[in-house]
Amino acid sequence: MITETIRSVLEHEGPAAWVTQGPEGPHLVATWNSYIQILDDHTLAFPAGGYRKTEQNLANGSGAQMIIGAKAPAGIGFLLTGRAALEVDTPVHAQLRSRFPWCRAAVVFRVTQVEKVLG
Amino acid sequence: MITETIRSVLEHEGPAAWVTQGPEGPHLVATWNSYIQILDDHTLAFPAGGYRKTEQNLANGSGAQMIIGAKAPAGIGFLLTGRAALEVDTPVHAQLRSRFPWCRAAVVFRVTQVEKVLG
Repeated sequence: MITETIRSVLEHEGPAAWVTQGPEGPHLVATWNSYIQILDDHTLAFPAGGYRKTEQNLANGSGAQMIIGAKAPAGIGFLLTGRAALEVDTPVHAQLRSRFPWCRAAVVFRVTQVEKVLG
Repeated sequence: MITETIRSVLEHEGPAAWVTQGPEGPHLVATWNSYIQILDDHTLAFPAGGYRKTEQNLANGSGAQMIIGAKAPAGIGFLLTGRAALEVDTPVHAQLRSRFPWCRAAVVFRVTQVEKVLG
């Protein structure tokens, strides 16, 4: 799921936008590629500073979609689909907080589908 | 609306994810910063290759949201909210097609709100 190509995309800096479904429609937020840690072949984690509305949407059952991409060396981008949850006071949260003191929670994103959307 | 800071973000390459509301929830797609042309202080345009589902969502009344960002020189990112439409055989489409032969339509995105979402 999290292929070598996706790993190489995340090694290049860029915005990683992700979206949840809210009562008033899509809620689009973002992190940076460099903030994303790969926990295992299906799971990404990154810090939450705000993301209050996103957290509410996830608690209400919304799925999550994220687009990551890098133009160099070869332009490529992927749509990642799955489910996300915010974790507080877990090992993942502690690890992220050591790098990002403002990290109020860890976003743990379990990816169930990967689609190439940028070439 | 389209400030100098936004112009400078678009001068750096990166994915520009944008989302519409569909019957089954958010539909997230992307373009590249370098593909986006600034038409005026409120309007961006970029090429559509696919975007079939997005086009349908827009025709059904969905608004559009986009996140653009660049980590260099100073990391910053913006959420742009507004309305978008696909134009065929207009001057903007002709202009984009001359640069992108696969451009089946021009996405014209009228931005009504800008919010800083990445620092």
